[in-house]
Amino acid sequence: MPQLRKDPVLKQWVIISPERGKRPSDFKKIEETADDPKTCPFCEGNEHLTPRETLAFRTSGTAANSKGWWVRIVPDRSPILAPEGDSGREGIGMFDAMNSIGVHEVVIETPRHDIGLQNASLEQVREVIWAYKQRLLEIKKNPRFKHFMIVKNSGKGVSNFSHSHSHIVATPIIPKRIEEELEGAREYYHYHDRCLFCDIIKQEAKEGSRVVYEDDQFIVFCPFAARFPFEMEITPKHHESSFELIENHMVGSLAKALQTALTKMQSLLPGQPFNFVIHTSPCSDSYKDFYHWHIEIIPKLTKIAGFEWGSGFYINPTPPEDAAKMLRETKVD
Amino acid sequence: MPQLRKDPVLKQWVIISPERGKRPSDFKKIEETADDPKTCPFCEGNEHLTPRETLAFRTSGTAANSKGWWVRIVPDRSPILAPEGDSGREGIGMFDAMNSIGVHEVVIETPRHDIGLQNASLEQVREVIWAYKQRLLEIKKNPRFKHFMIVKNSGKGVSNFSHSHSHIVATPIIPKRIEEELEGAREYYHYHDRCLFCDIIKQEAKEGSRVVYEDDQFIVFCPFAARFPFEMEITPKHHESSFELIENHMVGSLAKALQTALTKMQSLLPGQPFNFVIHTSPCSDSYKDFYHWHIEIIPKLTKIAGFEWGSGFYINPTPPEDAAKMLRETKVD
Repeated sequence: MPQLRKDPVLKQWVIISPERGKRPSDFKKIEETADDPKTCPFCEGNEHLTPRETLAFRTSGTAANSKGWWVRIVPDRSPILAPEGDSGREGIGMFDAMNSIGVHEVVIETPRHDIGLQNASLEQVREVIWAYKQRLLEIKKNPRFKHFMIVKNSGKGVSNFSHSHSHIVATPIIPKRIEEELEGAREYYHYHDRCLFCDIIKQEAKEGSRVVYEDDQFIVFCPFAARFPFEMEITPKHHESSFELIENHMVGSLAKALQTALTKMQSLLPGQPFNFVIHTSPCSDSYKDFYHWHIEIIPKLTKIAGFEWGSGFYINPTPPEDAAKMLRETKVD
Repeated sequence: MPQLRKDPVLKQWVIISPERGKRPSDFKKIEETADDPKTCPFCEGNEHLTPRETLAFRTSGTAANSKGWWVRIVPDRSPILAPEGDSGREGIGMFDAMNSIGVHEVVIETPRHDIGLQNASLEQVREVIWAYKQRLLEIKKNPRFKHFMIVKNSGKGVSNFSHSHSHIVATPIIPKRIEEELEGAREYYHYHDRCLFCDIIKQEAKEGSRVVYEDDQFIVFCPFAARFPFEMEITPKHHESSFELIENHMVGSLAKALQTALTKMQSLLPGQPFNFVIHTSPCSDSYKDFYHWHIEIIPKLTKIAGFEWGSGFYINPTPPEDAAKMLRETKVD
């Protein structure tokens, strides 16, 4: 079972995954992208190539793990966290470790090999959001998980599969990045009695120079201190702490915002890989006044060099105002 | 002038570098590695291809910016921080920004194009450490800089120049990564009245399973919660907060430890790029009891995927005990 270990200086948890047993020679291999629909485990008709589904939206009457679905969620074949077992929390001298218990599932966003979120029907994007929501609400019932995240890796070099998919990861601890967001937001809330994210959104909407897209419900903008060129954030305009509690009437608006952001990015940066991540409140009511859920979208254009990882100081060659202007002016149908 | 911007949620400063003015099409170009000694700005005889040197160890009687040196430090041609100008600290609505004032210099570690720290003479490695020390002590006299760091990017894809070199970067703020180390170390010190790093070193030395190399002065080990495969840390065994105050009698021992670590790594992972960074105390006496300087060495073997940057949770496929064993057993001459 993979192990979680805490760095005593940075208070950062690391997943040590010895099953993967990487020896020096393993790092030379380039992992192949499964690009042939015949052998792609995510294509319709190949359901037997994945573990058994945990959720599927499918035509009524079709059997689980067979054809007939339009969104399908399955456990990852090489999970970074194992779903069963003891928490195994222990001290090793002055160090802290625990078993890497959690959930790691794959959301297959479409049965079709050649469609991505940016060129799927808006209906399909909506269905994917519904699937995220429904599966998260189910996973949240397990009190052992403190946090969960939706992550998408897309494109050559960042994903092993070209078929459009994303990951759901539930962890037994609150990840460091989220802890940092909570801390910044909590401090601001204590001082101002207002949500930090709500204030950022108001300023961005008013100023306009970093806005890429907005409607009544959602705003897409390039953050003031964007770490990466063309980085974008999608946020509900009104205070909402948890993505998975998104209300029915907002799902269509989110689908439109997400698809617009991805389409503009892909049109401006054709073929470039990207990631997005949905940050939602940890599983507790105590964060609901000051945490505000959001999606971060990052095209993978720059390399992280020694200075960035050594200092935590990012260098962004494209001012977010310039990036936002180009994205805003990119027409999408 | 590049600008520093603070992310209000993460309290992380980002360098926005509009001079580089990256447009979408710029990201397609692969930057060339200057591999021809005739045009390499770091080779002896090509001193006119760099800005004027700020420090050089050279044969007595030779003129500045000419042949005759064995270690040479020059300003970077495209600095990420500008050395002159106002701090320009300002609020932009709720956001914070300042001018990106600082130092960014290149340490040319040898006049020879084909030699690296791992195959240079031990004498040469010692001279490089002396040069780091001497230049840092000089830069430290400027009270506008709060922190400085030595960074080395080596190998294809992580550096534009194959000629062995490293960077000195001085910043007007304490970088986030260092703030986090200070926070972890301060908290431990307040509770235990002992240096956290000293305690880690004692436990590692006693336990032994993660130790790669040690002598009386320095220890090289793979950290308990290593984020990356074959990650190593070099630390003085006795409490020292500032690298640049290293005492004369320790320089030879450090040169030996650094060269041993790099040689073992390159022998085990031939041709793989790597980074190292020297973390030293910020420019203030108030950290000296609990901060402990160290070098972090990271082979660039794994890609940072969406989950890692979204969560701050690293996945390391090689347990540090296995990595340390392989490194320990790798013979060096």
